[in-house]
Amino acid sequence: MHNFTFYNPVKILFGKGQISQLSNLVSANKKILLAYGGGSIKSNGVYQQVMSNLSNAEVIEFGGIEANPDYDTLMKAVQICKEQKIDLILSVGGGSIIDGCKFIALAAHYDGDPWDILTQKDLVCHNAIDIGVVQTLPATGSEMNCGSVISRRKIGAKQAFGSPLVFPKFAILDPETTYSLPIRQLKNGIIDPFIHVTEQYITTDLNTPIQDGIAETVLKTLISVSHDIVSGTTDYDTRASWMWAATNALNGYIGIGVDHDWATHMIGHELTAAYGLDHGQSLAIIAPQLWRHQFKTKMDKLAKLGRNVWGLENQDSEIVATQAIILTEEFFHSIGIQTKLSDFKVKVDPEAITENLFRYSNGNIGEHKNIDAQAVKEILLMAQ
Amino acid sequence: MHNFTFYNPVKILFGKGQISQLSNLVSANKKILLAYGGGSIKSNGVYQQVMSNLSNAEVIEFGGIEANPDYDTLMKAVQICKEQKIDLILSVGGGSIIDGCKFIALAAHYDGDPWDILTQKDLVCHNAIDIGVVQTLPATGSEMNCGSVISRRKIGAKQAFGSPLVFPKFAILDPETTYSLPIRQLKNGIIDPFIHVTEQYITTDLNTPIQDGIAETVLKTLISVSHDIVSGTTDYDTRASWMWAATNALNGYIGIGVDHDWATHMIGHELTAAYGLDHGQSLAIIAPQLWRHQFKTKMDKLAKLGRNVWGLENQDSEIVATQAIILTEEFFHSIGIQTKLSDFKVKVDPEAITENLFRYSNGNIGEHKNIDAQAVKEILLMAQ
Repeated sequence: MHNFTFYNPVKILFGKGQISQLSNLVSANKKILLAYGGGSIKSNGVYQQVMSNLSNAEVIEFGGIEANPDYDTLMKAVQICKEQKIDLILSVGGGSIIDGCKFIALAAHYDGDPWDILTQKDLVCHNAIDIGVVQTLPATGSEMNCGSVISRRKIGAKQAFGSPLVFPKFAILDPETTYSLPIRQLKNGIIDPFIHVTEQYITTDLNTPIQDGIAETVLKTLISVSHDIVSGTTDYDTRASWMWAATNALNGYIGIGVDHDWATHMIGHELTAAYGLDHGQSLAIIAPQLWRHQFKTKMDKLAKLGRNVWGLENQDSEIVATQAIILTEEFFHSIGIQTKLSDFKVKVDPEAITENLFRYSNGNIGEHKNIDAQAVKEILLMAQ
Repeated sequence: MHNFTFYNPVKILFGKGQISQLSNLVSANKKILLAYGGGSIKSNGVYQQVMSNLSNAEVIEFGGIEANPDYDTLMKAVQICKEQKIDLILSVGGGSIIDGCKFIALAAHYDGDPWDILTQKDLVCHNAIDIGVVQTLPATGSEMNCGSVISRRKIGAKQAFGSPLVFPKFAILDPETTYSLPIRQLKNGIIDPFIHVTEQYITTDLNTPIQDGIAETVLKTLISVSHDIVSGTTDYDTRASWMWAATNALNGYIGIGVDHDWATHMIGHELTAAYGLDHGQSLAIIAPQLWRHQFKTKMDKLAKLGRNVWGLENQDSEIVATQAIILTEEFFHSIGIQTKLSDFKVKVDPEAITENLFRYSNGNIGEHKNIDAQAVKEILLMAQ
């Protein structure tokens, strides 16, 4: 096990009716930026629940944050926060809204060019506006971590950043708010946390039974609820298990003391930026091929996936690991998630993808820093 | 799943050499109360490591905190904290020291009779001295929670309390500091976290796959390392898995959204207070008999223990649950942990135990509040 530091001060309020706690969580007379997306919160009753519990606060609305939140959209909110001296940014929606709020919170207190926050890996910020979350879409885990991914469509970029300043002060997770999600987001809500786990779990076997066991628990839970979830179940416990699994996939807990990959995400971000694929779709396309390409170093953990998640019993780790990839692909297909670029009629341009990918990255990617431009091109061709 | 709130802001610094981080964690010119126990930290090198990283701080030592820390001992430290205006209490040792520091931290800021902190369940404190931890004995999980148990030998009492004010600001866990522990503490370091898990896991089956899977992971990890640990292994990864398992057993994470029992602990505390049994010993004696006594309501989860931890495959849950208790007892015996009062030549006085137990408790105990004085007496007789 590697040495690690773990710190996660997010207060989670989980369960039905918990939005009513907002009035206790938000001090009276605070000035709040209420950030949301395309307006689904107004048709599913969440907006009304939120507003009725903010009667003591001054609320300024900022709607229209898109999936894969865009730099230019967010900069308008930054301007509002500066002008209005906002005390708290309340994110109501899914991971894109939260990610956007994290950027807004930092940029509103940053004197330089806010693009630095996304591109200067060693930048240290000193202040941020407080963030609160009402989570309606289980997927990214952003509600309980300090990371964020922002797109800048104008230049075809998608960049990640992290800062302990943007841990949400609280996150309200009511599984009932997920009942109205469309099937596309239900599917993304399975695949996204699934790959979050594998980016931390399908790496080097470092003899970390607690982290591995929790990772396997999250994967098994996602698998066990997946068919009901994509079928739109309104069984509360199933929705609750799904929602809590998604948070656990990326709240830092399974990633302590182990190697991290994230190459699937980095390649996937470029596919989203270039071809408009959903984040979850891009991950399902890249991950299995990346595991095959990096089979030698990932075989031990792929074999654990096969034995502990898929229940394979063969003694030969190579056979089990190979089979584990196939079973994972079959699982994706079984819930209607496609795993090839051609399924989306995308003819990939490997040169353009790799050029963008390595523009801001410090060298090669993957847990062994051995995935270079050539490897990315090979993985993309395997995924075609 | 029940609704829940989860909040745990403890910063964990885990791994070899992490004590060197103390100089970064403690601001210069702080006044520190260095709290420890019988002095083993001076012979195993931990004291020297700590002091060499506190050269900028003013350190006042308070040694001699006993296992099952005593109210009267701790009140001397409270006096020192008040007189010296201590900024930070640094606990160096195991869970008894941390528990003691939590009481000291609150009592030093409490104007009334400090015994209130331990006996008035609805008391709300408003201030506490900051606490830091250098953990040397994996067992109680106190390094990453806000609970504490204090004894008051003068009146034969052992009482628990909790307050979010006493979450440690940081906890340093270096598995190498455990190498010098004696076998008695190694055994307690297996049984104590094992029963912490079962108090939260062997309750009602509420369809909580994430919490259950993490609980099973902690149990399986404890079982897998146990023989090497009690044999005194110096294999780093084994010590690290053990240490992190013990923390995970009681940092709140497996206990969210589920029923809690804690009756084994409450009865065990009385056995410790009355007969001087180690905390861990008292738990191993009570838990299996309590599971038998409460078999009807605990059968579903005992069957999960049997299937998911002990690998039993029988379809009949009653048979699997019964067998799970036997296998757990056999596991305790296999690492030299005894499970009967007679093994310690204790002839229990059920009347005295129940009288003390229910003196401060609000009614019956257990997750269904159905364990009354009569039930406790029956469990004690079964454990004789």
